[in-house]
Amino acid sequence: MTSGDGTLLGAIEAGGTKFVLAVGRSPDDIEARHEIPTRKPEETLAEAAQWLEAHGELSALGIATFGPAQLDRDASDWGHILKTPKPGWSRCDLAGYFADHLGVPVGFDTDVNGAALAEHQLGAGRETAGMAYVTVGTGIGGGLIVNGQVVHGAGHPEMGHFFPRRDQSDHVFAGSCPFHGDCLEGLASGPAILSRWGQKLSDLPQDHEAHTLVAGYLAQLCHSLFAFCAIERVVLGGGVVKTPGLIDRVGEMTQLIGRDYLPGRTRQQVVPAELGNDAGLVGGLLLADACRI
Amino acid sequence: MTSGDGTLLGAIEAGGTKFVLAVGRSPDDIEARHEIPTRKPEETLAEAAQWLEAHGELSALGIATFGPAQLDRDASDWGHILKTPKPGWSRCDLAGYFADHLGVPVGFDTDVNGAALAEHQLGAGRETAGMAYVTVGTGIGGGLIVNGQVVHGAGHPEMGHFFPRRDQSDHVFAGSCPFHGDCLEGLASGPAILSRWGQKLSDLPQDHEAHTLVAGYLAQLCHSLFAFCAIERVVLGGGVVKTPGLIDRVGEMTQLIGRDYLPGRTRQQVVPAELGNDAGLVGGLLLADACRI
Repeated sequence: MTSGDGTLLGAIEAGGTKFVLAVGRSPDDIEARHEIPTRKPEETLAEAAQWLEAHGELSALGIATFGPAQLDRDASDWGHILKTPKPGWSRCDLAGYFADHLGVPVGFDTDVNGAALAEHQLGAGRETAGMAYVTVGTGIGGGLIVNGQVVHGAGHPEMGHFFPRRDQSDHVFAGSCPFHGDCLEGLASGPAILSRWGQKLSDLPQDHEAHTLVAGYLAQLCHSLFAFCAIERVVLGGGVVKTPGLIDRVGEMTQLIGRDYLPGRTRQQVVPAELGNDAGLVGGLLLADACRI
Repeated sequence: MTSGDGTLLGAIEAGGTKFVLAVGRSPDDIEARHEIPTRKPEETLAEAAQWLEAHGELSALGIATFGPAQLDRDASDWGHILKTPKPGWSRCDLAGYFADHLGVPVGFDTDVNGAALAEHQLGAGRETAGMAYVTVGTGIGGGLIVNGQVVHGAGHPEMGHFFPRRDQSDHVFAGSCPFHGDCLEGLASGPAILSRWGQKLSDLPQDHEAHTLVAGYLAQLCHSLFAFCAIERVVLGGGVVKTPGLIDRVGEMTQLIGRDYLPGRTRQQVVPAELGNDAGLVGGLLLADACRI
């Protein structure tokens, strides 16, 4: 499906604390991989370009980046980071820098969209027409695939910032999202859990209320995604989701919430991500593969 | 865009209480229109076929039907009504009947998907890549357009059956949805409003709490759709939405909920449907136009 033509593809997963770089001859085969800390744009991008160049001539590069990012191909600032609190990075022309310095076509998307693409083509979303990839970690973000395509639309999805119904037993915690308080990210992200219960979810005993509450809020996300988009799978990744038993709880609670009503319910599942920490990088290689000439 | 080639197209909007029929030479030009009451399938379909045939030779027919319906082209029961409480209609082969009796290609979708298609191509969703059409009336249902295509996925969306957060002042009413109690449909549909306040929303004074509550619940739907799918517009139709001031309230409350956060917010709007009662029929003509040979 995405086996490449033997030429070398490059990928960058651009994150707020590190850039992960890779080269490979096909998206499912990372040949070499390297991490560099994210500093000022000039230094970071120069070091990334140097490492990539050292591995030979690339046929294309794919970038899966932290956001917000301009994904609209028709916009004059396509391929740029948009306004961000991260010093120096606002309006940084990521795609343009590498197109200029490496002289190759560049594919560009957000990190979660890249991971969604990777899980869809090579991971837990294989053989679906529609799925969402949702990562639950420092934040909660998601990428949506519909009719086999990554959804961009106006900007890009921000799935962590919807408002699940609070559990009846759960009225005191104000939520940790600086924008929305108790949106999903404010209730179920890693920092929300830590600020509320003083420990990571995986360190809390299995009968602690945290497991049920977090699973219930994530289940509302899954149910709503099924109800709005009729997707077949929600693929869950990220640090919080590694908590033993959490995915099963989310799946069970999603079914409970649905009450056997949605027309696609027998085909709709909540499943763990398969590509782990490589999802963004594999997404980058897929983006490169799709744009090489 | 959808101007037809001068041949005659047929459309059926198949509803639980009436079938609305139309013919036209292009989707934006209904030449003749007729309503028949929905009775047993045999009688209803025979009368519909007869009326359509009387208008000349059709080049194609489009059906926008009540659900649940089998939309999967690869399924052996494509074009059928699925299991429904409506006596006699379960497993009715709607598309097959007309393909056989009229000898023309048949396009087939749900009524809300048909209306979404119509609003997208010829109504309030023109020039968007992504939008949702949501009708708020006897029930609440929606169709989703992403990357210019109607989303089918696993079954079809059921947007009325997600769970908005209850307003702090609003804890007593149990909701009217037989499946989910206080899902959106159970809180904001016409029957929910009537059973709760004894009047239609448009008959309640403008300072009645009902206006704010209903608008707030619909705003949560709009915010969630923007956050999940990054669509550009939510197009609202249906009887409840005709209530003066409601759409503006929903738009304002959607902005309030979003707290200026979503990356596409400047391009995201809540707008009234433009095609009114014709949306389903125009959708039927578009479905016909897309499948004629």
